[in-house]
Amino acid sequence: MSFALDDKALDLLFREAQTAQTFSDEPVSEERIREIYDLIKFAPTAFNQSPLRLTVLRSAEARGRLIPHLMGTNQAKTETAPATAILSMDTEFHEHLPRLFPVMPGLKDEVFSDPDARVGSAALNAALQAGYFILGVRAAGLAAGPMTGFDAEGINKEFFGDGKQKVLLVVNFGKPGENAYFPRNPRLSFEEVATVL
Amino acid sequence: MSFALDDKALDLLFREAQTAQTFSDEPVSEERIREIYDLIKFAPTAFNQSPLRLTVLRSAEARGRLIPHLMGTNQAKTETAPATAILSMDTEFHEHLPRLFPVMPGLKDEVFSDPDARVGSAALNAALQAGYFILGVRAAGLAAGPMTGFDAEGINKEFFGDGKQKVLLVVNFGKPGENAYFPRNPRLSFEEVATVL
Repeated sequence: MSFALDDKALDLLFREAQTAQTFSDEPVSEERIREIYDLIKFAPTAFNQSPLRLTVLRSAEARGRLIPHLMGTNQAKTETAPATAILSMDTEFHEHLPRLFPVMPGLKDEVFSDPDARVGSAALNAALQAGYFILGVRAAGLAAGPMTGFDAEGINKEFFGDGKQKVLLVVNFGKPGENAYFPRNPRLSFEEVATVL
Repeated sequence: MSFALDDKALDLLFREAQTAQTFSDEPVSEERIREIYDLIKFAPTAFNQSPLRLTVLRSAEARGRLIPHLMGTNQAKTETAPATAILSMDTEFHEHLPRLFPVMPGLKDEVFSDPDARVGSAALNAALQAGYFILGVRAAGLAAGPMTGFDAEGINKEFFGDGKQKVLLVVNFGKPGENAYFPRNPRLSFEEVATVL
């Protein structure tokens, strides 16, 4: 095998990492969250558009605003998490493009003046960044618990009243708690997903 | 700083990695592609739905089918790449759910019987996996060149005639060539993207 990373790193990021269902009460500092962002911000998005936004809940009060919008067992999981990131896309990311991608000055007013084009592009690129975020959390030695079972409209209304941001994913993160992991489910084989031409 | 990965790994995956614009002609073997998939397949998706599909072009003939559907300079970049992955979502991923997520036997026929629900979920989760793929390519010591400038309908028709798969992203990958990198563009600061509550 020929990876540039060693087995320990590959295990931590991919092979042995699993979605945590419970968390310890060890806090996650704001400084730590900043370090994770300052790592993953470098990973690529189209035209460097960087549409991901993070609303990170650390206080009991903030968590209390989120929990009613989560479905079923996601409520209890989130109760135990020391930090919970609402990952959203900024549908007005184009405002930053003159600075983020100066080589194409027309992007903001030509390509991305259309709101539908913006939302489609932001949804894809913010989801790529959500993938980077999950791996960034693991790189920091923390466990991630991503969730899609929530009332998106309720979260958008509660946290993004101006309508510019839309939630994509909610991710609990921190040190894993007791009985944090379910048995690993099977994965599709290479033959099932890949065609090499 | 408190990452579990060492600086070399963080640099390789995030801090020093950049989108490659040119590639060397060193081939990428099918075995290598398989190893990258067998790494990233473990990263999480909702209900383990694993909707990402890979169509990897290694032959000149296969590349020739893709290039007419790419925009502008993406054509020349792709000419030089030893491997190009068309990353797509399987809109019928739900067929595999009884095996992939046996704990909820109703998923396939209840939650995901609606095609719109499936496409929305597949688009998000396949994009998460596309993010994992880009970092998996880097973990293998290769450079990635993701692209969104293409005619999606043209690619879908040429490669996915049955309509079940839809392209999300096209990623050139291999060893970087000469003058592979543009200067790094600025990134948004933590203050610009994050709110901690």
